[in-house]
Amino acid sequence: MTTSNGSSGLFISFEGIDGSGKSTQARMLAQALEQDGRDVVLTREPGGSPGAEEIRALVLQGDPDRWSAETELLLFTAARRDHLERTIRPALAAGKVVICDRFADSTRMYQGLSRGDLRAKVDALHELMIGQEPDVTLLFDMDPAAGLARAKSRATVEERFEDFGVGLQEKMRAGFLALSQEFAARFEVINAARGIEDIAADVLARIKARLP
Amino acid sequence: MTTSNGSSGLFISFEGIDGSGKSTQARMLAQALEQDGRDVVLTREPGGSPGAEEIRALVLQGDPDRWSAETELLLFTAARRDHLERTIRPALAAGKVVICDRFADSTRMYQGLSRGDLRAKVDALHELMIGQEPDVTLLFDMDPAAGLARAKSRATVEERFEDFGVGLQEKMRAGFLALSQEFAARFEVINAARGIEDIAADVLARIKARLP
Repeated sequence: MTTSNGSSGLFISFEGIDGSGKSTQARMLAQALEQDGRDVVLTREPGGSPGAEEIRALVLQGDPDRWSAETELLLFTAARRDHLERTIRPALAAGKVVICDRFADSTRMYQGLSRGDLRAKVDALHELMIGQEPDVTLLFDMDPAAGLARAKSRATVEERFEDFGVGLQEKMRAGFLALSQEFAARFEVINAARGIEDIAADVLARIKARLP
Repeated sequence: MTTSNGSSGLFISFEGIDGSGKSTQARMLAQALEQDGRDVVLTREPGGSPGAEEIRALVLQGDPDRWSAETELLLFTAARRDHLERTIRPALAAGKVVICDRFADSTRMYQGLSRGDLRAKVDALHELMIGQEPDVTLLFDMDPAAGLARAKSRATVEERFEDFGVGLQEKMRAGFLALSQEFAARFEVINAARGIEDIAADVLARIKARLP
């Protein structure tokens, strides 16, 4: 059986607002699938390949206003192209499961919605230079106030994406939920306000139902 | 009088194969115009603004194959967007003459023609994220064998674009001449096989005829 990416692998993205617990869940899913004997590549964006990690560092270091929304969009798209070519596609071609912490939906939200009203440009650029969607996208949905508290409790040197107030996070939550309607076939909305183990069991069940 | 860029400035690009003498001529034109009392910004691509110079370094350092043609195109477009926003447009808005050593036509040639057959993507990306052309483009045209000899006689640490044989340079020359037909209104083809002072006088006369 082949999936929509044209290979025997499965491309899974994890999306959601900061503090939604998706990175923890991505690691737990990778571990569970490996215990089941699957070959798994756990990766993340921005970054995920040596070149893309260098672009990530270029974008996230320094003054948050050093790049315009449009330049940032181009840099993240360059990073995604490299990540796709060097990490994601080779893994899918080898029949592996790719678990990616954030992918194009994050760009639709963060560059398309929050930094400027660039959604049309984001979509056109994706169509032109990327053209690939995940087979399945897990959206970790929860109340932004709880998510923000969780994000702030972590020590992180890259606070760019977490330096938003609750108002903006609420806009992001609504935006992600709207995306889950727009791309209903590949989205699974996960209630992320539960205990870690409950969420992990839910995630694993949903992925097993979609595995080739 | 305003020019096609919508301001009182003039946006001039210098194009041509390596060794055509365009960088020397760009400096000489800048000097001549300043002596005439014009405010001139002499800049170059890739680069031309602090952010764009960092992207230039990222692209040009290391293994030439570290980036695919598509990723390189995205990175150069990101650099161009930054250069346009931070250097070129503010200078034009202030009524200055901007002299840029290479601009989008070089991308049409080097990414669009030589590294892959990406011209359609190059054009679509330019339309989507850049959208600006120079008011006038000076194409320094000469026999590639002579140009290559001149390029190789220079000591340069960034030989990426000069590490081509004569065959490829001939393809580039033909491509640039075809571009000068495609964008006939803004192109001036300069015979670059003459003495430096003769070329400089020709360049200055052509620019004076187009200055607001």
